[in-house]
Order: sequence, then C-alpha cells, then structure tokens
Amino acid sequence: MMTYQLKPIGLIRTPYSTLDECPRNIEESGPVCRVIVNTEFKDALSGLDPGHRILILYWMDQASFSELILPSRKTGERKGIFALRTPQRPNPIGIAEVPIESIDGNCIYVKGLDCLDKTPLIDIKPTRRPS
Amino acid sequence: MMTYQLKPIGLIRTPYSTLDECPRNIEESGPVCRVIVNTEFKDALSGLDPGHRILILYWMDQASFSELILPSRKTGERKGIFALRTPQRPNPIGIAEVPIESIDGNCIYVKGLDCLDKTPLIDIKPTRRPS
Repeated sequence: MMTYQLKPIGLIRTPYSTLDECPRNIEESGPVCRVIVNTEFKDALSGLDPGHRILILYWMDQASFSELILPSRKTGERKGIFALRTPQRPNPIGIAEVPIESIDGNCIYVKGLDCLDKTPLIDIKPTRRPS
Repeated sequence: MMTYQLKPIGLIRTPYSTLDECPRNIEESGPVCRVIVNTEFKDALSGLDPGHRILILYWMDQASFSELILPSRKTGERKGIFALRTPQRPNPIGIAEVPIESIDGNCIYVKGLDCLDKTPLIDIKPTRRPS
C-alpha cells in the first residue's frame, strides 16, 4: 500500500509530561504553551500575528490504534473513531484551533493545548473562518 | 531525522481532474463530493450523521514544496506558507470543514470540496465547536 512520509517541522512544549496529566480538550484559558518551528522554517511564520486564529497540526506519537469503536470520553456512548477526537486512530494527527497570543522568532505562544510536552509539530495553517 | 508514516484510509471523489479545475476554496454550495473510507474502516463512521460538521483531512499528493514565502492567491501579498492555505507546504495536508449531507455505507456525501479527484483521505474528525 502507498504510504506518505510526514516530516516534523518543530515541536510543541506544554506542561504535560504524561498522558494522565493532559487535559481532555483545548481550553483557551489554559496555561501558555509554545509552538516552536525548526529555525529553517522561521520565515514561513511571516504574516501571522497575535490575535490570528490558527490550526496547529501535530502527531500524537504516544497513541496506539486498534479499535474502530470506542466509548466517548464525555458521554460513555460507543462511537466510531471518526466520530470521536480520540488519539487512537489510524493516522494519529491532532488538530488544535486557537488564537495566537504572541510570536517571538521561531516560537508561537498559544494557550491551553491538550497534548503532551514535546509533541512533534507537523503543520500550522490560518483558519478559514473570519475571527 | 525521525519521520512518520501516513496510511491513506480511503479517497475523495470530486469533479476536478486537474489542479486548474479545482476551486480555490471550499464552497458549501458547491457540487456534491464523496468521501469514501476503505471498507475495513466502515464501522469507524458510526455516530456520524447528516448535519454534523466534520474535519476532512487529506494528502495533497500533487503539491510540491520549495518556497517559505509565497504570494497570497487572494490579495497577492507575500506571506509565510504557515500564514497561507497553499498546498505547497512541508507536509501537504489539506483540511476541509463541512457539514455531512448524507452517509451511505462507507461513503460520506459533502458539498463543495476543493481538492483533486482521487485525493488520498487520511482522517475524519468531528469539529469541536457546537454546530
């Protein structure tokens, strides 16, 4: 089967060093986190400014995948993994949509991410919707 | 450098067989497109219903990447690729957020995608925001 290679473009620094510590969802009032792009990609941040909403894509490299149906963490209802935000999916890509707090060089500061410290960063995009 | 393997989970059928034909953005009033998951993942769609908004992640396998700064297709202004939705990025993952029109077996019908016909599908997630 055809597969595709993902290359990390940086990493995400959060206060959470174990999965148990991670919050279950993005919280925009949560602690400040750093989205750090490798220095070779620093110039690709130009045009992003505080207040802009971005999508942050990351690779949940600690997640395993085996079941197609899992209980919802919110309601306990069993659902297909494509109807859930669980990290346990065929391609464990996580997406956070948050506003930029500030930018300093190759580092974007945002609040309230829910991923592990040192999660590999794979993309940053502006949101399409007007903020 | 560490890399990660993405495995396509299906494919997207749209009316566009060349990049020139693709619309520049998602248009919710656009033509019906089919998001087809491989039959092995059919059960992972349970819990998704018409009207739910989903994120569709796909691999823009026709895109090349070389420049960190490009002109915006809307305004011409030169910006970093992380401030643009251009397919020309280190990891060419596209994201569409659209409502589900209907579901039939392993196929989700949605409107107005902007990607090429037969684009590899890599994930489907529910949106976090209430619809």
